[in-house]
Parts: sequence; C-alpha cells; structure tokens
Amino acid sequence: MKSAILAVGTELLFGKVVNTNAAYLSQELNNMGIDVIYHYTMGDNPDRLRRVLEFAMEDCDLVVCTGGLGPTEDDLTKETISRFFGKELVLNQPALDSMMKFFETLNIEFTENNLKQAYMPENSTVFQNGAGTAPGFAAEKNGKYIICMPGVPREMKHMFEHEVKPFLMKLSDAHIYSRSLKVFGLGESMVETRLLHLIDGQTDPTIATYAKEGEVEVRVTSKRATLDEARRAADEMANSVLEVIGSYVYSTEGGEIYEEVARKLMERKITVSCCESPTAGLFAASLAKVPGVSEIFDRGIVAYSAQSKVDELEFGLDSDAGTPYGEAAAEYMAQSLFKKTGSRMCIASTGVAGPDDVDGIKPGTYHISILFDGKQITKRFFHNGRTRQMNREFMTLTMFDMVNRVLEGKDLIDMW
Amino acid sequence: MKSAILAVGTELLFGKVVNTNAAYLSQELNNMGIDVIYHYTMGDNPDRLRRVLEFAMEDCDLVVCTGGLGPTEDDLTKETISRFFGKELVLNQPALDSMMKFFETLNIEFTENNLKQAYMPENSTVFQNGAGTAPGFAAEKNGKYIICMPGVPREMKHMFEHEVKPFLMKLSDAHIYSRSLKVFGLGESMVETRLLHLIDGQTDPTIATYAKEGEVEVRVTSKRATLDEARRAADEMANSVLEVIGSYVYSTEGGEIYEEVARKLMERKITVSCCESPTAGLFAASLAKVPGVSEIFDRGIVAYSAQSKVDELEFGLDSDAGTPYGEAAAEYMAQSLFKKTGSRMCIASTGVAGPDDVDGIKPGTYHISILFDGKQITKRFFHNGRTRQMNREFMTLTMFDMVNRVLEGKDLIDMW
Repeated sequence: MKSAILAVGTELLFGKVVNTNAAYLSQELNNMGIDVIYHYTMGDNPDRLRRVLEFAMEDCDLVVCTGGLGPTEDDLTKETISRFFGKELVLNQPALDSMMKFFETLNIEFTENNLKQAYMPENSTVFQNGAGTAPGFAAEKNGKYIICMPGVPREMKHMFEHEVKPFLMKLSDAHIYSRSLKVFGLGESMVETRLLHLIDGQTDPTIATYAKEGEVEVRVTSKRATLDEARRAADEMANSVLEVIGSYVYSTEGGEIYEEVARKLMERKITVSCCESPTAGLFAASLAKVPGVSEIFDRGIVAYSAQSKVDELEFGLDSDAGTPYGEAAAEYMAQSLFKKTGSRMCIASTGVAGPDDVDGIKPGTYHISILFDGKQITKRFFHNGRTRQMNREFMTLTMFDMVNRVLEGKDLIDMW
Repeated sequence: MKSAILAVGTELLFGKVVNTNAAYLSQELNNMGIDVIYHYTMGDNPDRLRRVLEFAMEDCDLVVCTGGLGPTEDDLTKETISRFFGKELVLNQPALDSMMKFFETLNIEFTENNLKQAYMPENSTVFQNGAGTAPGFAAEKNGKYIICMPGVPREMKHMFEHEVKPFLMKLSDAHIYSRSLKVFGLGESMVETRLLHLIDGQTDPTIATYAKEGEVEVRVTSKRATLDEARRAADEMANSVLEVIGSYVYSTEGGEIYEEVARKLMERKITVSCCESPTAGLFAASLAKVPGVSEIFDRGIVAYSAQSKVDELEFGLDSDAGTPYGEAAAEYMAQSLFKKTGSRMCIASTGVAGPDDVDGIKPGTYHISILFDGKQITKRFFHNGRTRQMNREFMTLTMFDMVNRVLEGKDLIDMW
C-alpha cells in the first residue's frame, strides 16, 4: 500500500513550526508496511487542496491529513475532502456527544462554531479525539482512503495510536519488524562497503544505513505475512550484520550511547567521575541527561585553564605529565581524579578542539584515559571534523564509546 | 513571487529525519518577501520528481530543492531538473576545483563518483559549498527558477546564507533589511501581546516572532526601494520594539546568549569559573563552544553527588547552607568557588531537574548565585518544562541571561 502525508497549515509555510507530524507518521506507517512516497504541506486553499489530492491519488491508496480541522478552518479541509469523494457532510451524534462531554469536563462553554467539528463525511469512520476537541475520520471510495486528524502533535499522536493504527492494521495484510543497530567508529560509506554483500540484491529483509553526526544507524527491516516470520528474518539478518561490523556496534536496540553507558553503570552500581578539558562538560552533561544517574555519578571537573589542572589534579606543568594535551596528562588526570574521588571508574580526556593548533598539536588530537577498578587504559585519537564544536562532540562520543568498550570487556580498536 | 520548497530524500519519507530545512527556508523566503505555498518531500524517483515539478510550476515562479545532490544519487535529481528545463549537464570547472581543494584539505582521496557532483545544468549559476562537497545551482527558464542545494542542514544553511540569498536578492527589485532581536524571559504569546500595537496593521516593516526552546526571536524586516531606506525603517521599528520589551532583549544582532556572554567576558578580560549541579556541565560546555574562551574560562565543577559538594566546595550538609538545592547552597557554592579559583566572576547553580521531586522540592526549581568583583547576587527561579532535559537546558539559559544582566549592569527582573 502506498501513501502520502498531507499537512494543512499556514504556520508550517511560514516556517513558524517544524513539521514533526510528517516524521512521526512516516515512521509509524513504514513500520506497518505502508510505503510513504510523498509529504505535502499547504495552506487552507480548497482549490490547491483538491489538486494535491488528485495528484496524490494517482500514485497512492491512502492520504493521511493533519490539520485544518479546527472550528475556524474545518469547513475548508473537510468540505473539500467530502466533495472530492462525492460525499455529504452529516452530523455525527457520537462525535458531538463526546465533544460536549470534553467541554463539560474542562468547564468551557460549548460555542456554536464547535458544532461544525461534529460534521463528518457520510459513511466515514469517526475517530474520537482523546486529547482535544476536533474528531478525525477516515473516508473511503473505490478502495482508496483519506484519513484526517488534528494538527496539534499531541492530539494527533493520541488519535493515531488509539484509533487510526488499529483501523489501518485491519487494512494491511503484511507485518513489519525492524532492528536498529547503532554504530560508532566507522563512517557511513565504510559501513555500506563492508555490508555490500548483504545489501546487494536483498529485497527482504532490507538493510538501510543512516548517518548522524559521528554515528551510523543500520536499520534491518522485514515485511512478512506474520509478525513472527518478520521478526525471525530481521533477527537473522541483524546477526549477519553483527558478524561483519559487530565490533563497532554499541547498541542493538537503537539506544543512544550515553544511555547505554548510563544503564550499564547503574545496573552494575559503578560509581563514576570524569575530568574533561576540550569537551568542557559535554561528557558530564550527557551522562546527566539520564534520570537516576545521580546514584552513580559523583562529579565532573572541567579543568580548562593550565592553573586549574594544577589545582584540581595536582598536575605539575613541569612534571612528568609533560604537555597538558598529551597521553601522560590524560593518565595523570585520571589518576588524580581517582585519588580525589575514589570513584570506581575515573575518565579523563585532554586534547585540542581547534580551530587552531596549540603547542604544535593539531585540532582533533585527543587522549582518553580510563581507570577502572585499578586497571588503566589510555588511547590516542585523531579525528578533525569541520568545526571546533563538531570536534568536541566527537570527542565526547569517543569517551562514551571507550567507556562502553571497557564495561563490555571489548578490545579497543582503531577507528576510521 | 510564489515559491515551493521541495526536499528529496528517502530518510525523510522513512521519518528518520525531521524536515527542518523546510521550516528554515520558509522563514528565510518569507522574510525576503517570497511567498511559500507548498512543501513537498519525495524520494529519488525521476518520474515523480518531474510530475511534482510540473505541478509546482503551475502556481510558482521558484522551486527551492534540498537533497539528492550527493555522489550516489545526484544524477537523478540533477538530470531530471536539467531535462525538465531542456538543458544539458556540463562539467563546471570552478566547482570541480573547489571540491578537489576541499578533499585535499581534509586529506581524503578524491574518488571517481565525486566527479559527478561537478556536473551542472548548462548556463546555470553555480553555488559553492562552503561546508561540504556537493555544489548547488540555480537554473532558469522563461523567468521561472529552480534552485538546488545539499540536504545536510549545516551545508544547506551555509550555502543559502552566503550564495543563494544574495542571488535571490538580485532577482527581486526590492531591498530587504532585517533586524533580529533575541528575547529571554518572556514567552512568545506574551511578546506578541506586548507588541500588538506595533504588529497590527503594519505592512512594512513587518514584525514576526519565532519561538525557540526557552527563547523568542523578534524579526523586524523592511523591504524598500533602496537598502538605506530599508535599513532606516527596520532600525526605527527595532527601536520601538526595544522601548516595549528591551529589558528582555539580550542581543540586537541575532547572536546566541552564550556568544554574547563569552564576547563580553573576553572583551573585558574577566576570568570566570562555574559550579553546576543539575545542569551538570551544560553551562561550561556552552561557554567553551566559543573559540578563544580559554583566555578567560578557568574551570568548571560539576558537583553532582552530595559528597562532591562537601569535597569540592567545603560544603557541609549540616552547615548553614542547609539543603544542597536551596538559596544558601547556591551562595555558598559561589563563595567556595571564588576561594578556590580567585576568578573575578564565579557562577553557581543548584536545584532539581526532575522528573521527580527531591526533598519535597519540585522539578524546575533552581537558584543561581553570581559573585562578581566582591558583589554577590542570588535569585530563585521556577520554570517546569515538559522534560528533565528541557529543564536543564532552560536552567542553563537562565544562568547565561543572569550573567549577561550582571555584565550589563541591568536589573534582574521577574520572568514569566
């Protein structure tokens, strides 16, 4: 089944609002085995709406609309769609009852213009709005469907989850299952090259790669007659992918790397402290995104100036540690941090973020040292991105990846 | 002039990526006086692309495309557009030179498939990619234009700002001048309400408000026969806006608040240290985004656990400072930080990020204390957003806003 997603709303055309509805619905529809081939956005213009519907219906069996159902604009969108399918708008009593009840609960007066919202194309399936007032509907003609939902993301998601999804499930004969493998340390083109023998000529499961800043997601998707079959096929292919690039995969369930690390530290009750220089708090701030992390996260030191390294970490600039940006410095920082905190895991990083060289050291050069239960491991990295901030974010991801490897007892490997 | 924005990319149709490009371009085009009447998103399908172009060109004089220019997919989008306008693809030597130079700088091998990216529709205007490899272009036929840019938001924005915007300016016979006032501490609807007498019935300059997480941008735009006239009109209106909400405006030139603060600290050579609890490094990490900040940023302490507060800040839990989340704690933290660092400005914050209450204190409650040249100022804030992370980011913005007010000698005011 092919579909298009259509958003009605001038606020989108003014760029006041980002169309997150389209991304949400695309994920949901794709997961149900419904292909999405177009997104459209347009204003409340009946003539253009009619033409877009005609255009979409040439390729698609389903158009999912969001927006344009409010008490002021509804006649436009709803009437145009009704006319497009040659249907009358009729009062839907259950929709009216449910709306009046909603107004009563919130103790808001039910005004005349709200009545319009209870008019629906004849013979349509009406969807209750569990999070607002305007109901939605599905209209059908000759096996083609138009579904209308509110534009407010919270209302739309609630309606989709509770009413529209079950409705669409009944229409589809296929089941979809997806696995998401998260990769750090290999670029997207390298991932594709290594998986080429699996990707080539493969129609089900499909393997798709998506690049995010510094990371790659590999999505394995199967579409079969039963969910069990789809799951088995996707899992089997995911295992084949893991055989090739498993040493770079940090999550097989689509989680973020800081979440993986926080989860493992919390599960194993490993106390942790960090000392950062060029990342300047990014590692600590990411770890603290996760609720409950206060149980294991003791403290972070952002040792930015040379003096702060001396004060905080008893780091003598004329000591063995040498340059404050090198390997010995990273080791020394982790050791001093341990003396100070006693945390089971102490992580330190130092290096040069850029844009300029410092002491002859190139931007993107950094060292990470981890002291965990008495064992210390230190590694040099070089990865110069396009900006200072990209370097800093990349260094932070590398810190998390290295912690993850230490926690999993995996080898450190060369990246890129 | 009417326009459509067209995104080419299956990652959008899978819902893997939200189409932020469409919102960005819509804002920019509207600000230049170009109406946006459609957004489209589609995959790399030449037949559908041709039909969408035909459809769009019925109403529009300009189609702005993003995506589909990469080394693997470019032939599709670029060839389809060339054919649509009846043009040949020809090798563009400056585009090739600039690409090869880019590869050289990054020390990456220039592979054969990259060559494709330097082919452009004949007689088109080529746009350099200052932030990546694929160049863009503008093709014209019978007074109608198609502009193509890369899909990666960072590259697209860079190209739009530096190459496409000046190109579009020349097409228009009017001159545009915009002022961007950045607001913190007032919600968007409140900003609109206060400016209503200026907004209502105003056609030039226009005043538009844009909400970002925790902030509002007020954009004043004038479109006149000469740039001087437009500038004068926009500046005059910007002053009228400042008369009403000036006490909430932290930048009159569109900068980010951390940039404003870093610039002022660097200009005045004020050394600074910070101590964070719920924000856990976000303040330090934002400050360190700015190159050269190492001249004035001494260090940051992320005092996350209760023990770390005791160690790092000689903060006795049974001392006068009381709860580690309250006003006295914030004051104490700033004072201890000063004793330790001697930084001219010491900033401390403590509070509860959520999602749950701590010691009966509600999420979104926080105190910020600033000790600057011997004077200390401490303030309580409460602003509970939808998530723990939103609260943390909001607290960080508040820290920067308070520092900015102290540096400007502005009063602290109640927000919201």
